[in-house]
This record gives sequence, structure tokens and C-alpha cells, in this order.
Amino acid sequence: MSVRPVEGGVTAPQGFRAAGVAAGIKAKGLDLALVASEPRASAAAVFTTNRAKAAPVLVSQRHLAESGGQAAALVVNSGCANACTGEAGLAGARDTTAAVARALGADPRDVLPASTGVIGALLPVARLVELAPALVAELGADRADRFAEAILTTDRGPKVAHAKGEIGGRAFTVLGIAKGAGMIHPTVAPLAPHATMLAFLFTDAVADAAALEGALVRVAEETYNRASVDGDTSTNDALIALASGRAETKPSHGPNIAPQLEEAMGLVSERLARAMVADGEGAEHLVEIMVRGTASSADALVVARTIATSPLVKTALYGQDPNWGRILGAAGRAGVAFDPNRARIAIGGVDIVGAGVGLGAEPEKRARLVMAQPSYAIEVVLGEGPGHARYFACDLGIGYVRCNASYRS
Amino acid sequence: MSVRPVEGGVTAPQGFRAAGVAAGIKAKGLDLALVASEPRASAAAVFTTNRAKAAPVLVSQRHLAESGGQAAALVVNSGCANACTGEAGLAGARDTTAAVARALGADPRDVLPASTGVIGALLPVARLVELAPALVAELGADRADRFAEAILTTDRGPKVAHAKGEIGGRAFTVLGIAKGAGMIHPTVAPLAPHATMLAFLFTDAVADAAALEGALVRVAEETYNRASVDGDTSTNDALIALASGRAETKPSHGPNIAPQLEEAMGLVSERLARAMVADGEGAEHLVEIMVRGTASSADALVVARTIATSPLVKTALYGQDPNWGRILGAAGRAGVAFDPNRARIAIGGVDIVGAGVGLGAEPEKRARLVMAQPSYAIEVVLGEGPGHARYFACDLGIGYVRCNASYRS
Repeated sequence: MSVRPVEGGVTAPQGFRAAGVAAGIKAKGLDLALVASEPRASAAAVFTTNRAKAAPVLVSQRHLAESGGQAAALVVNSGCANACTGEAGLAGARDTTAAVARALGADPRDVLPASTGVIGALLPVARLVELAPALVAELGADRADRFAEAILTTDRGPKVAHAKGEIGGRAFTVLGIAKGAGMIHPTVAPLAPHATMLAFLFTDAVADAAALEGALVRVAEETYNRASVDGDTSTNDALIALASGRAETKPSHGPNIAPQLEEAMGLVSERLARAMVADGEGAEHLVEIMVRGTASSADALVVARTIATSPLVKTALYGQDPNWGRILGAAGRAGVAFDPNRARIAIGGVDIVGAGVGLGAEPEKRARLVMAQPSYAIEVVLGEGPGHARYFACDLGIGYVRCNASYRS
Repeated sequence: MSVRPVEGGVTAPQGFRAAGVAAGIKAKGLDLALVASEPRASAAAVFTTNRAKAAPVLVSQRHLAESGGQAAALVVNSGCANACTGEAGLAGARDTTAAVARALGADPRDVLPASTGVIGALLPVARLVELAPALVAELGADRADRFAEAILTTDRGPKVAHAKGEIGGRAFTVLGIAKGAGMIHPTVAPLAPHATMLAFLFTDAVADAAALEGALVRVAEETYNRASVDGDTSTNDALIALASGRAETKPSHGPNIAPQLEEAMGLVSERLARAMVADGEGAEHLVEIMVRGTASSADALVVARTIATSPLVKTALYGQDPNWGRILGAAGRAGVAFDPNRARIAIGGVDIVGAGVGLGAEPEKRARLVMAQPSYAIEVVLGEGPGHARYFACDLGIGYVRCNASYRS
């Protein structure tokens, strides 16, 4: 299909303008971000399943329900999650959103808020309300990079990916912007992602909310859902897609979405999911865990996730130690049937376990060299079954502990 | 009831002799341990549910089945888990066990092996076979401390607890000896514990294998099953109880066990479970997570376990940070229904969250002082329901990472 990633730069799809300003929520740097769509975009979203949903999640869910899947803008802040803040938090999210809507000349229900940062703290609402007109005045088609920067917390850098495609000869773009370095363990069910992951997809293709939502759920299952930094799940996760329709492609309606558009959303999402895990708090390695040979792909996924989230495996990845016993131990406790005497494990293409036993020091030495790389794959074959799955993991190192023993999230 | 813990010293129950010697499996120190019972003891055990069961687990399971729940001895080594070692590993476990049986003059099926240490390495079988007579010659009623030392791996010290009780005026003793500092996350189902936990209970009370097994499963559910260091589960876990009958108490048969004996087993097991978590790799704090107010105790247990195993909570414990947002966030992702606006959290008796929101800097300051202690409780109240559960957790610190990035387990 005619979908390809775009390398370098940030191309805002037609119809979108972005802004990022410093509102003093964080000690320094940009921390208040806005994207506006003209015309009003189709909108679909999945939010955290956490029982303790942050105020902006509750407000965005209500706004999407009231608008029937439309949005004129997203307003996002970092530095404060506005979670576990009770009625005052809800009022703060509503007041901030309403101020941005007024400055944009939009209906408040068409503005979706999102927040990330410290749980339990209240937003500086008066300051944000006062800043709303200046934020709107900053909007520009070339400011997506400022939006991407303003939504970061412990991230080492912005996470942006985009792809271009064609539907019936008409070009469209998908731009994805995400943040997330800790509390990352998305598991998006139809109504439900996970983790202080904020991920936003913007496209100028024509699609209604139902088409976007269907694609969002399927794409998330293969990308954000296969990525874990620490297995923890945030109160604030949001994955939101907006389609401005300005590219005037053949419309995608209801359960049907143009395969090119879904492919582009998938391509962008995979890049963002990889970037989030690679930027895991303190992480030095992005490790693709590939499991196959199980009875089903669901089984393979459970095994891959168990390996990817095992503290013992993750500290071995940090130590660059091809400690296959821990990998097999994690696979063995996943609750999936397999014969350990047929297990095969390879790291970066180097076989280190065959027929369930170690293949000796020489291949382990070569695997150790692979594990010094910033990115590599671990392949775990558990039999002859057709099941297979992939999961993105990172190492658990001293940097993670340092970051989280002091940072208030 | 007339059951009380015994402080200090190690009293071997009547009928048991123990030994610990240095066999050179570890670089230094005692690493081969033996307990023998005269007469042959009733025996019950639960083993890891890991699919990748170590050779000694498979051999012990078979021996118990063949003997119908009898054992004359346990032989335990540290330094080598003899896991993921295929047919050679099984042969090694059998040959070692048979050599010990010969030296004891016992049936090989009456000797139960257990191993802990590096996965994937083979036992030095020839050396162990040669050492068996010397090991047996070391046996003494006053050598339980050497047994306790010889089974350790990354543990900072031995874990021993004992209790005395009376059944119908006749005194009996339960001695418990355990090891385990990492790969600890026991979840003992009727046939199934977890974690490189080795825990052994020795009693001189009279009980058959069925009575012991029933008590073992119930006791484990309230103790070892409520303890986690890292959520990882070993290939080698074993929890074994032996009853010599030498105290000549009124016999416990089949589904019925003297409540005094079960109480003593529970008391000893709780002390061992606490000791294992307190000695978690790199851990500086033993934290009792108490959850109540849920619809059921099963719900409370799921919430308590999710909090206890959350990397973000555990790094906050390490940082002595009363980061209640992470506690509430972990509770929220446990999949249990509760109203976050009614949540209450106290640390060491200091309320820091009421009605779902933080109570401010002053109580957090007092909670921070509590969190500097080696041991304290966190109470999480999620409503008015009757459910309640307790879980033993520890912090995740730089010591854990250092230990596991270099140690081969």
C-alpha cells in the first residue's frame, strides 16, 4: 500500500495548529499545550481502566459522549496529573477547558483536556484561565514540536512520528505525538488503555468517530498494548485520535476504515510505542521479545508480557547478562502450557538455549555483545504451535530506581 | 491455645538431626545441607507451579508419590538450582539423592532433594556422591543452624523460627527453616507454591501426610502466599513439612489436624515469610500492606498484592516518600470495584488520604518519619465492605538492581 513513514521534521496534517507555552506548572520549561482543528475534527479515544480516573479523563469522556465524537481542540498540561483531587480537581479541569474554549470561540464540550504529572496536586486554575488567550494566540501550523515538548514529564525527549499515504489518489498524513517514560503498561481494551501514556494521532484524512475508534482499538492492541516500562498503570492514560477531514479523501464511515489510514495509524503508533519504551525511566535498552511456537497467539502474548515485565529479566537486561534461566523461569510461570525441554532462546540471532538447556559459554559471550546494543531482539520458541506475539520491553536499572525514589508521580 | 513462639536459639524437634558442609558448589561457605528423621517422618509438600520445574522438584514429587508421604531425609544444596538442565540434571539429582540414601541406610525414595542457586548449571555430582558419607557423619541434633546457613544464596542471613505447644498435655515443637531473598512471590495452590523459596517445617508432633498437607496449604495461603519480593517465581520453590511423631502427641489423621499443631505451623510460617521479605534483595523496609473495606477478602487480597508488587510503589518505599498517588493508582488498576472518593490511606497510623484526596503536607511529613523505620504498616481502606487482607512487601532499591544485574540466578 502507498503508506510510508516520514523521516525527520514534523508535518502537521492540514487543519491542525499547535502551541506550547510555559505556565509555571513545572519548575521550568513548556508545560501547557494546545492543538486546535479547523474544521472541528472527528474524535475517538480510549482511556485508562484505572478505577482512580483523573479529572481530565472523566471530563474528556463526558465531552466526547456529549459531542458525539467531535473535538475542536485538545488542551494538555504536564507537571500535574490532576488525579485523586476530588470535586476541586473536576472543577479545575472544567474551568481550564472552558477558558480555552472561550478563547477559541468553541463549545466547551468540543475541548478535550489531558494531564500528566504529580498525582494529588491541584492545577493552578486561575493562572491557566488567565493564560488561555495567550495560548490560543500562539497556535501555528509549524508548532507541533512545541506541543510535543510541553507534554513531557520524566521523558528524555519528545516522541513524534508521522506517515503519509494515499486513498484513491488523494494524499493524507497521520502525525502522532506521545509522552510517557514511567507508569507505562498500556492494555487498551475497547474502552480502556493504561499507563501515564498520552498519545495523540492527528490526521487530515476523512473518517468519522466510529471508524477512528475501531482503528484505534485494533492499532493499540498491536502497539501500545505490547509495550511496558514498569507494569504500572496510570490514572491518566489517554489515546486520542482526531481527523480534520481536510485532505478530502474518500470518507471512512462506521465499522469501515480505509485500510491505508489504519495502516498509517499503525505505523505511527508502533514508532511511538517503541519510543516510549526506549525512553523508559533510566532504560538503556529497547528489547523486542518475540515468542512463538505456543498453541495460540494469546498464549504467546501472555508469555511475552510475563518475560517483558519480570524484574529479574529486566535487571539482567540492565546487566547485559544473557541470563536465559530467568527468561525460561518467567515463561514457565506465565500459566501457559509448554514443554520446557523443547524451548529455544536466541538473543540477537545468537542461539543460547536449545532443547531446554544452555548451549554453553561461547554463544553466551556473543549474546553479551548483542546486549550491549541500545536495541535488540530476544526470540523465545516454545514448541511447534502456530501462536506468536511480540512485546516491547526495556531494562530496569539504577536510573529507574533513582528516578522513582525521588520523583513525585 | 497453648502455642507460643520460642525466642532465640534453635531447638531441633525430637527425632531430627541436621548437618551443613562446604561442598564447593558456591565459591565459599556451607552449601550442602541434610536433615534426617528417625523414625522415618510423615511428609507433605507443595512445589512451584512453574512449567520449568527444576530436576530436584520433579524428583521430590516422584519420591513423595512413591513413598506415599514418608521421608527419612532432606538433602538441600545452594549455589546451583539444577534447573533447565534436562536429562543430565535429573540424573544428577537422582544420583546425589541415592548416595545420601546409601550413606544413611535409607531407601532412595525416602530422601527428598531441593536445590537453589544458578539456573542452567549442573551439580558437581561426583563430588557430592563422594561427600555423602561425610555429610551423614556430620549429623547432629544441635546442627540445625548449619543446615540453615548452608541453604542460603543471596540471603543476608539464616531464617529460623520455632514454636512450642501442647496437645492433650504433651509438648511438641515446630521448627521452621527457610531461605529466599529474590525470585520471591509464593502463591501456593493446593499443589503449588512459587518463588526460589525453600521452606522446611519440622515437628515432633504425630501427624500423617494428609493432615500435614491440609495444614500446609492453609497456612501457606495466609503466610508465604502473602509475601512478595519481586513478583518473580522460581523453578525450584519447595515447602516441605516433616513430622517425626517422637513427641507422641494424640495423632492428627487425614483431613483433621490438631488445631494446636496447625497454629504452631502458622506462627512459624508467618515469621519465616516476614523474614524472607525483610531480607528481600537490597530491601531496607518490611512493609505490611493492610487493605479493607472491599466487597470480599478476595478483592482485598488482589488490591493488596497489586500495591505490594507495584514497581512505582516499591521505589517510593525505598525513597521513604509517602507517595499515596501511586498507592491509589495501583489499587485502581487491580480490577476491583471501589469508589476512589471514599479511599482512606494511613502510613504507620498517620492518615494521609481521606475521602480520596490528600490531607496535606503536615501528615505526609509525619508519615515520612514512619517510612524511615525498618518495618511499618500501610493501611488502605476502600469502602465499608467486610473484605480485608494483609500482604508483606518490601522496597525496590538500588541494592536490588545491583544484586540482580550481576548475580546469576
